[in-house]
Amino acid sequence: MENMQAVCCKVRNATYKLSLYDTKTKNDILMAIADKIEQNKENIKKINAIDIVNAKGKLSDAMIDRLTLTDSRIALMAEGVRQVADLDDPVGKVVRQWKVDSGLEIKKVRAPLGVIGVIYESRPNVTVDVASLCIKSGNGVLLKGGKEAINTNRALFEIIQEAIEELGLDKDIVGFVDNVDRQATFDMLQQAKYIDVIIPRGSDNLKKFVLTNSQIPVIASSGGNCHVYVEKTANLDMAKRIVYNAKMQRVSVCNAEEQLLVDEAIADKFLPDMLKTLLDGGCKIIGDETIQKYASDVIPATEEDYRTEREDYFLTVKVVKDYKEAIDRINANGTKHSESIVSKDEEVMRIFTTAVDAGCVYTNASTRFTDGFEFGFGAEIGISTQKLHARGPLGLEQLTSEKYVVTGHGEIRK
Amino acid sequence: MENMQAVCCKVRNATYKLSLYDTKTKNDILMAIADKIEQNKENIKKINAIDIVNAKGKLSDAMIDRLTLTDSRIALMAEGVRQVADLDDPVGKVVRQWKVDSGLEIKKVRAPLGVIGVIYESRPNVTVDVASLCIKSGNGVLLKGGKEAINTNRALFEIIQEAIEELGLDKDIVGFVDNVDRQATFDMLQQAKYIDVIIPRGSDNLKKFVLTNSQIPVIASSGGNCHVYVEKTANLDMAKRIVYNAKMQRVSVCNAEEQLLVDEAIADKFLPDMLKTLLDGGCKIIGDETIQKYASDVIPATEEDYRTEREDYFLTVKVVKDYKEAIDRINANGTKHSESIVSKDEEVMRIFTTAVDAGCVYTNASTRFTDGFEFGFGAEIGISTQKLHARGPLGLEQLTSEKYVVTGHGEIRK
Repeated sequence: MENMQAVCCKVRNATYKLSLYDTKTKNDILMAIADKIEQNKENIKKINAIDIVNAKGKLSDAMIDRLTLTDSRIALMAEGVRQVADLDDPVGKVVRQWKVDSGLEIKKVRAPLGVIGVIYESRPNVTVDVASLCIKSGNGVLLKGGKEAINTNRALFEIIQEAIEELGLDKDIVGFVDNVDRQATFDMLQQAKYIDVIIPRGSDNLKKFVLTNSQIPVIASSGGNCHVYVEKTANLDMAKRIVYNAKMQRVSVCNAEEQLLVDEAIADKFLPDMLKTLLDGGCKIIGDETIQKYASDVIPATEEDYRTEREDYFLTVKVVKDYKEAIDRINANGTKHSESIVSKDEEVMRIFTTAVDAGCVYTNASTRFTDGFEFGFGAEIGISTQKLHARGPLGLEQLTSEKYVVTGHGEIRK
Repeated sequence: MENMQAVCCKVRNATYKLSLYDTKTKNDILMAIADKIEQNKENIKKINAIDIVNAKGKLSDAMIDRLTLTDSRIALMAEGVRQVADLDDPVGKVVRQWKVDSGLEIKKVRAPLGVIGVIYESRPNVTVDVASLCIKSGNGVLLKGGKEAINTNRALFEIIQEAIEELGLDKDIVGFVDNVDRQATFDMLQQAKYIDVIIPRGSDNLKKFVLTNSQIPVIASSGGNCHVYVEKTANLDMAKRIVYNAKMQRVSVCNAEEQLLVDEAIADKFLPDMLKTLLDGGCKIIGDETIQKYASDVIPATEEDYRTEREDYFLTVKVVKDYKEAIDRINANGTKHSESIVSKDEEVMRIFTTAVDAGCVYTNASTRFTDGFEFGFGAEIGISTQKLHARGPLGLEQLTSEKYVVTGHGEIRK
């Protein structure tokens, strides 16, 4: 715990200096990090090999693949850092300014959050991604990776610190928790004096542990139980393309469709062909008796299925009476991530986008677009399904707060 | 607990309807509430008298005064509701809109937070203030007041529900926890399924209990240990006016000055007269040996004094070497509320406003302006000293979230 405080305190103190670095200085840091990663490619692979050997027999092949750094993955990592340098710097942007009767001039200005603690698992490139996004947005960052990548993460962290130090700047704007047990995570979550925000990236278990134990505000995603709702006026060809894409284009991601709702007025016309196409594509269908009429091989649905995100080749399907039932079901069972309606009725779409409580609400598009790059943010640190602070893809801007800078001329309160 | 769930669930269900009410409907509700409060003036006073009798001998006179509703206070309460009706409706405002390469049109739109749980103490007018701000911003609200005002709070809540019901709308957009013990507060804080945000208003004890036990995101103020820093280039007459006003204009509030920092280069010139004026005004001075040279009757300072918000006629004074020490002290000891520099040096002021980590940073003005009315927000539900979501005065806009409404034309992810 004492050691944890010391690590946090170092980052905190350096962060106040970082808040004064201009955009060019921050970009210089990022370019230096990218160069140094490339220069140390062989060494990174050598150290990464230790983690891979340690993981053999303990982790699945898929997990070991996520852990492995190759030449091309290292090059991509460096390229990612350079792309962050290219992004607009949100810090210092005046969001709004106005003058009040007392004479004061008030500016609402983007400012860094401060120190961000990122707790993550498995993929070591997160170390570099997260550090570069935090530096560009003026935030100090304390990194805590998983045990399976500890050697690789430490090597990347040391490269980052060296790159910063060689520029004559304070290397402690990036810190590293060199301890992989849960107790260290717990200790980190108590450091509200030094850490402003915690971002967990990884399994549901990790997020749950963080949300339960953190004394520090958390930005987290609760995953996506995303719906596509085909309303009775929908262009059914378009609906078919969207339903198929949202489900099948990539099943393992949080913005993939898990639930399909269809108005009963068009169910007979739409569902037989839609379900056949999905089944032919290798997707299993879960549904109640009504759905079982439209296709064979439908897995009987339980109530829990309507609330379950599978991230797999499964789609739960339900016929609804009208848009009101669709909205109620989405608000009851959704996870506030991404929800889509296919419709031609402008008024129904207005009601849907207003009443559906989610970070991203689509009309006539696939839910798969909820993504920092697709939104034009250039990079993302995650997707928020919370309502405070920021919803949807978290880009650089969402890694900042707003503060009021008030210019007076001797004003006092009457 | 079951009863708590039922109460929360009713508000949650009504809130989805509220999200579709237009501005006129919400204003109609507010005007009806204001009218009904005035019509029921005598009844409100009669019920309020019960709370006052119950409080006699248990609460201080000051507390009983806060509890008491008079004709003029009831009139002010109704007037406050009408003022909220006059404010701009933040809901539905398009914050930003852009088009991305895929063809999607993305709008970032202000949306209600959902259900806000407000836990408060003592003053019954909070019941009406908070309900009207939540309704106007499209949020359902669950009210839990303190035991000392339970009868008055219940009467006001019933008036609010009647006013809504008479308009043929869903009265359950406002809910009331008719149970005053801590266990009920604890139960309320577990209802993350039904409540989106908790706002505690009251004592530090209440806030601490809420922050420790809530499973729901909290917007809270940690109070204000506010600094005024007189930099060496300051206009000393202006500095004197600001220091005096920030301290003395009203001592019991969170935006009052608690700490005075003065550059050593001007201490000899500035402090003797400044301290005398404060002492003559009835303010006690706390300081180290350096400060004790400048006035008699200086109370010796402990380290704790520099971190303490007294909300009383005390000012802790410290001489600093330069603006860097001032910034470091403010960031170490401040509560991120309101901080002010008096200076003529533009570069120093730029560094101060950038590096000082607070919701509101002033140049050449009193800290006492941190207030929803003074900022032109028209009303406030509190002051945030957090960094996520919103900092500074919380007006109607800060009671909303932003969501992405994405208009497609059949777009699917490649």
